Amino acid sequence: MSPSGLETGSPRKPRARECGLRLGVLEPGPHNAITDVPGVRVGHVTIVDGGCIDPPRGPARTGVTVVLPHGDNLFRHKVPAAFHVINGFGKAAGSTQVQELGAIETPIALTNTLSVGAAFEGLVQHALATNPDIGVSAGTVNPIVAECSDARLNDIRALVVRPAHVLKAIRDAEGGPVTEGSVGAGTGMICYGWKGGIGSASRTVGLGDESYVVGVLTLANFGRARDLCIAGVPVGESLRPAGRQPAHDGGGSCVVVLATSAPADSRQLGRLARRVQNGLARTGAFGDHGSGEYVIAFSTARRIPHAPAAHELAATTLPEDGTLIDVLFRAVSESAEEAVVNALLSAEHVGISSGGLGVPLPVDQLRELTDRAQHPPQESTGD
Amino acid sequence: MSPSGLETGSPRKPRARECGLRLGVLEPGPHNAITDVPGVRVGHVTIVDGGCIDPPRGPARTGVTVVLPHGDNLFRHKVPAAFHVINGFGKAAGSTQVQELGAIETPIALTNTLSVGAAFEGLVQHALATNPDIGVSAGTVNPIVAECSDARLNDIRALVVRPAHVLKAIRDAEGGPVTEGSVGAGTGMICYGWKGGIGSASRTVGLGDESYVVGVLTLANFGRARDLCIAGVPVGESLRPAGRQPAHDGGGSCVVVLATSAPADSRQLGRLARRVQNGLARTGAFGDHGSGEYVIAFSTARRIPHAPAAHELAATTLPEDGTLIDVLFRAVSESAEEAVVNALLSAEHVGISSGGLGVPLPVDQLRELTDRAQHPPQESTGD
Amino acid sequence: MSPSGLETGSPRKPRARECGLRLGVLEPGPHNAITDVPGVRVGHVTIVDGGCIDPPRGPARTGVTVVLPHGDNLFRHKVPAAFHVINGFGKAAGSTQVQELGAIETPIALTNTLSVGAAFEGLVQHALATNPDIGVSAGTVNPIVAECSDARLNDIRALVVRPAHVLKAIRDAEGGPVTEGSVGAGTGMICYGWKGGIGSASRTVGLGDESYVVGVLTLANFGRARDLCIAGVPVGESLRPAGRQPAHDGGGSCVVVLATSAPADSRQLGRLARRVQNGLARTGAFGDHGSGEYVIAFSTARRIPHAPAAHELAATTLPEDGTLIDVLFRAVSESAEEAVVNALLSAEHVGISSGGLGVPLPVDQLRELTDRAQHPPQESTGD
Amino acid sequence: MSPSGLETGSPRKPRARECGLRLGVLEPGPHNAITDVPGVRVGHVTIVDGGCIDPPRGPARTGVTVVLPHGDNLFRHKVPAAFHVINGFGKAAGSTQVQELGAIETPIALTNTLSVGAAFEGLVQHALATNPDIGVSAGTVNPIVAECSDARLNDIRALVVRPAHVLKAIRDAEGGPVTEGSVGAGTGMICYGWKGGIGSASRTVGLGDESYVVGVLTLANFGRARDLCIAGVPVGESLRPAGRQPAHDGGGSCVVVLATSAPADSRQLGRLARRVQNGLARTGAFGDHGSGEYVIAFSTARRIPHAPAAHELAATTLPEDGTLIDVLFRAVSESAEEAVVNALLSAEHVGISSGGLGVPLPVDQLRELTDRAQHPPQESTGD
Repeated sequence: MSPSGLETGSPRKPRARECGLRLGVLEPGPHNAITDVPGVRVGHVTIVDGGCIDPPRGPARTGVTVVLPHGDNLFRHKVPAAFHVINGFGKAAGSTQVQELGAIETPIALTNTLSVGAAFEGLVQHALATNPDIGVSAGTVNPIVAECSDARLNDIRALVVRPAHVLKAIRDAEGGPVTEGSVGAGTGMICYGWKGGIGSASRTVGLGDESYVVGVLTLANFGRARDLCIAGVPVGESLRPAGRQPAHDGGGSCVVVLATSAPADSRQLGRLARRVQNGLARTGAFGDHGSGEYVIAFSTARRIPHAPAAHELAATTLPEDGTLIDVLFRAVSESAEEAVVNALLSAEHVGISSGGLGVPLPVDQLRELTDRAQHPPQESTGD
Repeated sequence: MSPSGLETGSPRKPRARECGLRLGVLEPGPHNAITDVPGVRVGHVTIVDGGCIDPPRGPARTGVTVVLPHGDNLFRHKVPAAFHVINGFGKAAGSTQVQELGAIETPIALTNTLSVGAAFEGLVQHALATNPDIGVSAGTVNPIVAECSDARLNDIRALVVRPAHVLKAIRDAEGGPVTEGSVGAGTGMICYGWKGGIGSASRTVGLGDESYVVGVLTLANFGRARDLCIAGVPVGESLRPAGRQPAHDGGGSCVVVLATSAPADSRQLGRLARRVQNGLARTGAFGDHGSGEYVIAFSTARRIPHAPAAHELAATTLPEDGTLIDVLFRAVSESAEEAVVNALLSAEHVGISSGGLGVPLPVDQLRELTDRAQHPPQESTGD
Repeated sequence: MSPSGLETGSPRKPRARECGLRLGVLEPGPHNAITDVPGVRVGHVTIVDGGCIDPPRGPARTGVTVVLPHGDNLFRHKVPAAFHVINGFGKAAGSTQVQELGAIETPIALTNTLSVGAAFEGLVQHALATNPDIGVSAGTVNPIVAECSDARLNDIRALVVRPAHVLKAIRDAEGGPVTEGSVGAGTGMICYGWKGGIGSASRTVGLGDESYVVGVLTLANFGRARDLCIAGVPVGESLRPAGRQPAHDGGGSCVVVLATSAPADSRQLGRLARRVQNGLARTGAFGDHGSGEYVIAFSTARRIPHAPAAHELAATTLPEDGTLIDVLFRAVSESAEEAVVNALLSAEHVGISSGGLGVPLPVDQLRELTDRAQHPPQESTGD
Repeated sequence: MSPSGLETGSPRKPRARECGLRLGVLEPGPHNAITDVPGVRVGHVTIVDGGCIDPPRGPARTGVTVVLPHGDNLFRHKVPAAFHVINGFGKAAGSTQVQELGAIETPIALTNTLSVGAAFEGLVQHALATNPDIGVSAGTVNPIVAECSDARLNDIRALVVRPAHVLKAIRDAEGGPVTEGSVGAGTGMICYGWKGGIGSASRTVGLGDESYVVGVLTLANFGRARDLCIAGVPVGESLRPAGRQPAHDGGGSCVVVLATSAPADSRQLGRLARRVQNGLARTGAFGDHGSGEYVIAFSTARRIPHAPAAHELAATTLPEDGTLIDVLFRAVSESAEEAVVNALLSAEHVGISSGGLGVPLPVDQLRELTDRAQHPPQESTGD
């Protein structure tokens, strides 16, 4: 089995805005992706095969996605961060140290639930390779890993994700447009009964002279088919996948990586992170028991040296009155909502048959529903 | 100035369901109110006057609302509880002890921001009057108070709410239909630019032999006019109040009291409480910086004696697999959403002129908008 | 009943250092008190009387203590802050907003448990008097109140503390030596079975060119007689108060106000605050169920304007590597420990007979025990 | 390199009680170990070698320790649990789900900091092997891993701990006396400048008819030499290890596993867990920045089925008044303190030379100091 790139084969599907969907009122950045936050990079490794006989295992539809706050040595140049738990039915590594110290010092790795250990080890290997003093004179390192279960499409028991996949995803990480859908950690994900996966979106926030970006990358694997709501339209009642959603699927979950160029400190990033739930709620989610939902937020406005000199600690923080922070809160919710929709719109079938699960959202039918709701046939209107 | 009842003068306005609005899929209880949870009582004291000259102060449009989990001595028979902070820009008393001990032992009092102290003292007076051993042999008592700022309509600096108002609200508390809108603590509240205040709603959840109720009472004082979304329809763009909403109003906030007859323990009530944010988000809120949002949740399934014998501590808790808890989560979100809408629909002008603020939501116009969205003129549909 | 000052009548009793007790290794500031942190002020109002007949009530032994981070308008010039709960069996106001926004904007008021409401209203009155725009154009204000129960010595049910006492304590607040023991909020407190109350201590921390102060003020009302440990010596076994400690006293508690001139932000102040528990543990406490223990921490290194211009938000924070933060952590623990001992050493009988409760710690006997332990009769030693 | 057992070679060193040290007032259980809580098992895998050339790496002095709440299938029969962070400068997996759901469903694995990933994978492999439905119809599993850094004695960069070590430690786990000191995860640990590692202790708590056990297992790797305090005696000033402690050692930390047979629910276990800090503080710790300190607490009084029937959810909880919970709190502090001392007393040199680090505490010298303090040469005393 070797990492293979689904993303190369298929032409990109239209995203929300290309489908005429306008979510919220703020403007996206140039790529409408987390990479609009200057310096942020995303890398994917996608693992797809039909399984094997020796050792016996089922199909692999899984992978790793990494998000890097910047292209330099993160252990040397940490960034302010927060870790927020919306619903803690999920596994993650690194959360307690982020909450205590308010910073992250490795790339953020997303993968399937049972591969958190492998991803942790991959991040350790990466940190050791780039920092010969870790474990010698510079202390240890805090890897950040979060996960969703892709057990509905992937033989998750086979543990095919290895530390090397994380290293490759980091090597391949780049700025610019983000590949979405059935890619990287999103390969085997299901969202609102349809094929889910990776989605991204961004918003620019200008205020006076200042201009900031908020960007979201989501690993979308949550929601029940009938609850899906797109651009405020309850499309879930009309658009139901043919296969029945399992009554209790023991999976679900959603991980959201939130980046901003605004000078938020750790406490303020926590405040931003808590607004992600608003965006998820607008797509129809009720916060299912089994849906672990985590937000990892960071700011690129500042770098915290591993051993800072006093003058390196002077920093500006966000004003917490007036309108700037409220616009940022709105940007978070809008970006999170649109990132989920982009995940749904971008996701493709993952090669092999999977018992009716993992069907892509029927975009044409969706457009018909949302067009009609947003532009009802004219009779007379008061606005 | 004396407490006066606005509620007696005006015929009740239609609530959400009476306007043809169906929020969510679950069925409400008989009163579609928090009082559908057996034993729960609500009491209001409404304070409205035109101000006075000696001492000089402006108009009073404020009050107190209390929620009682049951009609017995709460200090002797505490109930399991949780206190959840969505956005902590708000004042409250009692939160830390609820989080530590998982129970409440007084009525819950809601009032305006600067009157938390008076309400605290009112709850103390009530507890002392009914428990002669408090402060002698039975320890002290933990009053629960939460607030919103009614400074836009009320001369909040005048501190007209006194402890006696809390005592009267407790005396007047009753089950059955809940008076909503510009009443009690809701008298001076504004929500999405319109007159806000008290709203309530409930859902029944049946599963096999078991049937439970989830009820919400909200003090709704949050949101920006253009964001208002009712039953999924973004009505805020069309329905804008004439007066401009202040750019930075130093107020806002939303308090939600969440009751259930389901046997949730404190940790589980915390999980339920965290789903309230989904309901608020569906009405259009982005979680403004200045909008303190708190949830106080309790279960009536169990009473915890002040000095329990061992056998009094046996209790059942909610199963956390299968579908029951997910339906309860949905019930929380639906009830919170509908309670906000009921607050908006029920709220009336508060007597005196107030510079264009506090105008009731124009119900006819709203119905036209939501009718059209929910039943678009037929052409052709695919479902 | 009028506030009366016990503190004027009696000559000051010797504090820990004057008794030859050396707690820890760091040096105290000039007053060995929280007021060594430049700008910090402390004010007390002490209420003592024998009760009255109309209305009937028992003796009053209670009061109010306030701590002011600086002498200017706190609402205009907030300071970074944290609120930490060690054991949440206690009442407090203001905690949730401190945790959300990381700042305090009023003096900190300490009083008895049932008077939190009165103290809240006193802080509101003070803020309104000094800020005519509160409730008009500047939003509301978040009063900070914490408490211990003095029900063992005070007729706590009588609610004799009124808002005016808070206003007077603020007016009387000053820098310099802090009056300790049976004064202000400490008037009716009991600690380790002996008379307790207010104690304070400080440590200076120098590192290179930088020099910072950590100061603690504690309201000490916790602990069981036999557990008392002073300077590491388990004196509680030898020094037992004659009257028996009640088996279950329904009171207890300890509030700690922690000030520092070091440039700690809110998150870092939370880290400092969490070290207070170490100091309390060293005096012998096990963290009794009924002992509510709260820490309110602030830094004077920075002021946060109510409506900050962008350039006013630049600030330095503490480096979190190297030794500075560790020395600060040590300073917190040492100061908290010594503040409790100072409370015990300073506290006096409160006038009237109280059934054997509230006896001052016998200092001579204590000194004999600690002298012997710290300087054992010489035979031979290796150190 | 193969797992090898140091523990077989050396006769057991005397523990605290065998040295005449009496810590606290409660009685220990028969083994004075976490295994006094019925059903609890402990397993170690110790990895020691001199390093190797291909691939090149330094000496291994590391390992894995597991604690099992009971001997049955933990995924099928979860136990109530809490996860408390004293100081979050540490890595851990599983914490967020324990905090959300209040239960653990795998053994608890302790290892070195960079091996959290390997231990996670080991726990996953164990859960998959014993539960064929995980990842198919039963959802996923939440492994619990915590760590300390053994980088001072172990080439931690070599990542020699593998998943198989966890499987072996689980297989070898047993009740009865717990091997302490330089064993399992404790192999390379340093505590107060001396050789540290695994320590354990317990207390029995009887009240009326009821009798409960509290047991602690600690991975002790924290503290500064001069601060060491044993049985209240500040021995650190006299007993200093010859080699200097590094100024900034980039490691430290302490993990505490806390077990009880008392019927504490998750919230109550959190309250117990928060008292561990008192016990650590009594050994002299100030809570260093770099010392990650975590408590994982569970109760064996109840089992929570993976898919519970309603009647399986009835359970009793601890009464939270009266004296029982206070005695349990005391038991937690005493056990934690004694477990650290037992770790120090039991730890041995780990074979190979290590630059003066890792010297065992000189027990004879210690006994002389504590004997003299506890039984000072008689002259005259009043107690």
